[in-house]
Amino acid sequence: MKGISGKSRAIIEHVKPAIDNGEFPIKRVEGERVEVTADIYCDGHDKIKAVLLYKHIKQRKWNEVPMHLISNDRWGAYFKTTQTGWYEYTIQAWVDHFATWQHDIKRKFEAGQHIATELLMGANMILEVAEKSSTKLTQKLIGWAQQMQSPIDFQSEVNIALSPELSEQMYRYGHRSNATMYPKLLKVQVERQKALFSTWYELFPRSTAKEKGQHGTFADVAHLLPRISALGFDVLYLPPVHPIGTKFRKGKNNNVKAAPDEPGSPWAIGNKEGGHKAIHPQLGSLDDFRALIAKAQEYNMEIAMDIAFQCSPDHPYVTEHPEWFKWRPDGTVQYAENPPKKYQDIIPINFETDDWQNLWRELKSVVDYWILEGVKIFRVDNPHTKAFAFWQWMIAEVKKDAPEVLFLSEAFTRPRIMERLAKIGFSQSYTYFTWRNTGEEIKEYLIELTSTEVVEYMRPNFWPNTPDILPVSLENKDEPAFITRLLLAATLSSNYGIYGPVFELGLNEAYSGKEEYNQSEKYEIHHWDWSKETKITDAIRKVNLLRKGYKALQQTRNLMFLNADNAQLLAFIKYDDDKTELILTVINLDTNNQQAGWIQVPLYLFHLPYGEAYTVHDLMTGNKYTWKDEWNYVMLHPNIAPAHMFHLEVNPIHNPKQPLVVNVVE
Amino acid sequence: MKGISGKSRAIIEHVKPAIDNGEFPIKRVEGERVEVTADIYCDGHDKIKAVLLYKHIKQRKWNEVPMHLISNDRWGAYFKTTQTGWYEYTIQAWVDHFATWQHDIKRKFEAGQHIATELLMGANMILEVAEKSSTKLTQKLIGWAQQMQSPIDFQSEVNIALSPELSEQMYRYGHRSNATMYPKLLKVQVERQKALFSTWYELFPRSTAKEKGQHGTFADVAHLLPRISALGFDVLYLPPVHPIGTKFRKGKNNNVKAAPDEPGSPWAIGNKEGGHKAIHPQLGSLDDFRALIAKAQEYNMEIAMDIAFQCSPDHPYVTEHPEWFKWRPDGTVQYAENPPKKYQDIIPINFETDDWQNLWRELKSVVDYWILEGVKIFRVDNPHTKAFAFWQWMIAEVKKDAPEVLFLSEAFTRPRIMERLAKIGFSQSYTYFTWRNTGEEIKEYLIELTSTEVVEYMRPNFWPNTPDILPVSLENKDEPAFITRLLLAATLSSNYGIYGPVFELGLNEAYSGKEEYNQSEKYEIHHWDWSKETKITDAIRKVNLLRKGYKALQQTRNLMFLNADNAQLLAFIKYDDDKTELILTVINLDTNNQQAGWIQVPLYLFHLPYGEAYTVHDLMTGNKYTWKDEWNYVMLHPNIAPAHMFHLEVNPIHNPKQPLVVNVVE
Repeated sequence: MKGISGKSRAIIEHVKPAIDNGEFPIKRVEGERVEVTADIYCDGHDKIKAVLLYKHIKQRKWNEVPMHLISNDRWGAYFKTTQTGWYEYTIQAWVDHFATWQHDIKRKFEAGQHIATELLMGANMILEVAEKSSTKLTQKLIGWAQQMQSPIDFQSEVNIALSPELSEQMYRYGHRSNATMYPKLLKVQVERQKALFSTWYELFPRSTAKEKGQHGTFADVAHLLPRISALGFDVLYLPPVHPIGTKFRKGKNNNVKAAPDEPGSPWAIGNKEGGHKAIHPQLGSLDDFRALIAKAQEYNMEIAMDIAFQCSPDHPYVTEHPEWFKWRPDGTVQYAENPPKKYQDIIPINFETDDWQNLWRELKSVVDYWILEGVKIFRVDNPHTKAFAFWQWMIAEVKKDAPEVLFLSEAFTRPRIMERLAKIGFSQSYTYFTWRNTGEEIKEYLIELTSTEVVEYMRPNFWPNTPDILPVSLENKDEPAFITRLLLAATLSSNYGIYGPVFELGLNEAYSGKEEYNQSEKYEIHHWDWSKETKITDAIRKVNLLRKGYKALQQTRNLMFLNADNAQLLAFIKYDDDKTELILTVINLDTNNQQAGWIQVPLYLFHLPYGEAYTVHDLMTGNKYTWKDEWNYVMLHPNIAPAHMFHLEVNPIHNPKQPLVVNVVE
Repeated sequence: MKGISGKSRAIIEHVKPAIDNGEFPIKRVEGERVEVTADIYCDGHDKIKAVLLYKHIKQRKWNEVPMHLISNDRWGAYFKTTQTGWYEYTIQAWVDHFATWQHDIKRKFEAGQHIATELLMGANMILEVAEKSSTKLTQKLIGWAQQMQSPIDFQSEVNIALSPELSEQMYRYGHRSNATMYPKLLKVQVERQKALFSTWYELFPRSTAKEKGQHGTFADVAHLLPRISALGFDVLYLPPVHPIGTKFRKGKNNNVKAAPDEPGSPWAIGNKEGGHKAIHPQLGSLDDFRALIAKAQEYNMEIAMDIAFQCSPDHPYVTEHPEWFKWRPDGTVQYAENPPKKYQDIIPINFETDDWQNLWRELKSVVDYWILEGVKIFRVDNPHTKAFAFWQWMIAEVKKDAPEVLFLSEAFTRPRIMERLAKIGFSQSYTYFTWRNTGEEIKEYLIELTSTEVVEYMRPNFWPNTPDILPVSLENKDEPAFITRLLLAATLSSNYGIYGPVFELGLNEAYSGKEEYNQSEKYEIHHWDWSKETKITDAIRKVNLLRKGYKALQQTRNLMFLNADNAQLLAFIKYDDDKTELILTVINLDTNNQQAGWIQVPLYLFHLPYGEAYTVHDLMTGNKYTWKDEWNYVMLHPNIAPAHMFHLEVNPIHNPKQPLVVNVVE
């Protein structure tokens, strides 16, 4: 019987959330709730009590929240995270003999049974606790116990027995005999709010020069900050800014040979001028980079840096650390390949190297280096082609000292792999949104992201396009398609981003039948007209402003799809945790034709009254409509307004905040 | 990086089955399969291999089964259990560089690339393995490697590279560099076949006397064995056979006072003549009990003993071990109660006693005592009112020395509690079947039992009635209701039982509006006419014979409900693991009226041909019908035949076994 707590009768099991049985932390941002539930019970008919215990790992003592029975032996409680870093939580439960006694004596008294002996039993329990509690309460408890020992009329004593004051004292000071402690410490990775709510703009710095034909610089990028900030973005993501390899450099449209003046892909990192800690000289100096970061801060923006742990053949690592790479029998270093395709301009790191510990330290030092230079967000390129164990270790180590640092996982791969990357610590994840087009596809995917365990650890970041992907939904499509995809991304997900200049301009030409841009910026320098304002630009500004104004849009968890009698109308409500702010979005998925139909507002779920008229206020146009009951009519034309974003102004919701309205300028 | 296997890139997760993440064993009987699946993958594009490892805990070395990719990174394999006791299983996976090389060289060769360097890489891998393998193979491997080092025409070398013989050698002797071992050892509790397939008959020995007014004895029970065995039962379950308490003894119909000549409830165990290891003198001696067990063996039957760990007030434990009970301030021992109800004839054991270790040892010694006397099956009374930890320890300890011993959990309580009892080791469980009446109720419940994780650890035992329960489905009902409930229990579940004499006789009178029998045998001695044969008796004999003849009915896992256009017709197929034996049962749930309708045979699921006629052979009547395609017509009258039990004689099934037919004698 060694190791058995024979007298502990309370059972605690199936504690949720617990990712892979607690192997991985769940994720929250500061201020978010952690709702914990578990099956808790004991043998027999005794009453039990249970408490949720939680603390920041830097705290020594547990905080305690009483748990409540939900139904069918499922108990629940919640706590709020207030600090970045890691929290731990677990559960304690015990057979509550005093509560059992209270329950029994009430029943017996009501049935007219003699309860003198029962009162003596209660008195004994109270006296036991009295010894432990403070002086003032001790006297009170002793007094109650004495009355039970010499009862007057039973009714008075039963009143004392059941009094909230006594219950409270017995709960607080009663000894939790043979309590069961759930054996696992479950963890929460708490990050800053930006992890949950962020708006990304991606551009290639080298394409930002004022003059056509010139190489853009950090200074040029800095000039664009006011514009991008005014559009409502708060993260500016730059592809790698390091020296670009010269050996096997790729040319225009991924040509295997580059002309002498071609700039190469920024992801082919490293040449004789340096590697992952160096800056491509044509972009400027380290000081210029620092100046860019400083200016971004002025505009409440952050620079997100690309972390692509791979090397060009002339990266210094290749000669300094040949043991980190695979070598072929012909003496050459093994380049990346997916046979029969070859990517000779990129050398993968061999994570099975015997020198893996030094490799890991060096790669982490790259991240540390840029953190010291002020970078707090990293977009990680293809994390799924590097060892999972490395990321898990690296992210945890970095966050120990710098919990504010965020990592976005750029993995478009198989579901289990994308999930694992999120579990091992990435703050945000690219998703399949880019390829979810029909209403059914979107609903099914969003339900997976928001209503399954995935919601606990994966924060989606929706991208309608990237430099690698011109999806079918945008290829050869007009502005309405771009605006529709933008609105879907920006309203469904609180984190979203666009590969900006080509999106704003509505570029839609694919390269030779592939899902890629023709004349991709990955291989050449472009010159964009940053002063141009398209309809798309206008929609971006509007939706970003609404995202900033409404809490309901600043999270991805609270989402409900609505019934519609027209499959081309995607309707959903997003709401804040209190369900006091309701934003009802209707998007016309048909980017060519007007679509109309009836959508159902589930009044009962939001405790809204039936039979009364209420106002829905379209925040995109300022128009107000009077709706009644559940089913209401909408009509959307792609060229006029591809979507409604209604603020529901319904009576029982007393929301003091004036709704923020973006007025349309036709 | 302490404790991190930095070079292990293969991930193994979500291994199933694993009850509560492996905290509890799954259950099997000898010969049953354990199908194991897991998500297995690595970073990047390398190929992986995975093996399922398993062994009986008494074995030292692992057995190994290659796993196969099912889809979407899910892999699977299975093994068969052949021995009772416990098995362990886990998974090993690794990046298979040789398989990756094979995959790549094939692609490159097909694309016409130069592969001389690739062949050198393969030769190196082969030579590395050659050093480790046996002499004969070493030569062969070296030969192949040498040819790759000096290729003739590439085609020959690629043929060698991809040859099954080389693949086999590299798999067998190749070193599993940086293999990942799943960190948990998952367990299987393997029991004898009876755990899965058993047919129970319950009777009160004291009601078996030949003469009315006499107290039945073990010898009287022995006289009934031929009859009960001939009905097809293989377990005879007896309520407690111990001395019955005299203090606060209950009278007829649970009267709080017993008349001097009333026998009391057998569950009020213990008096001055002894406790749980003693025998009630009126039933006979220990030798008589041994004789009963011996005679049961002759009839291929077993005696199941009742284990009810509670005491009457005059049980010897109460004076010998007062510390095992709760005492009231008035000096009396605490009786069982559920306020305001009192059960003064039963004293619960206090599992929170400080002396719990001695208590546990003593209770286990009761089980050990009867095992030595030849009892191998225990029906445990109300296990949910005793500490779970005790059962878990006791069952595991008993099974270490006597894996053949089975425990049936008699808990009719809340779902989580019933599940836990099954998880902690009970071989079989009473269920909610007793209260599942409509087709929807039955389907929903059976799907829970057979198609969720519950199937891995809980073996249902279906009881249409018990001495405690005369359910609504039988109260004031006629024979067809009894036969319907019998057939449901006997066909849906491979373990089932009846509280026999009252069931055979169709007794249906409840006591004062309760779900209990009037004049329950629990409180008085009855005298049954054992020579009487009812229609119910006839149905019992038939269905039990079919259960013995058809494997499909000897397990509860392989069950599929069929569509029917009449909700009163419950239709389902049970099948053996190979899906070669198909038993299609249709039961008319309306016990008053004839019901007819169309039912659908899902031909595609059983690989049966469309468009051909096939024979369905009613094993209850001997009638044969010709069916075609999926939808076929049935008609059942409760007074003629409340059910069909069809053996499907369909062409592609070559079943040499002659179907066993029970001929009806009208």
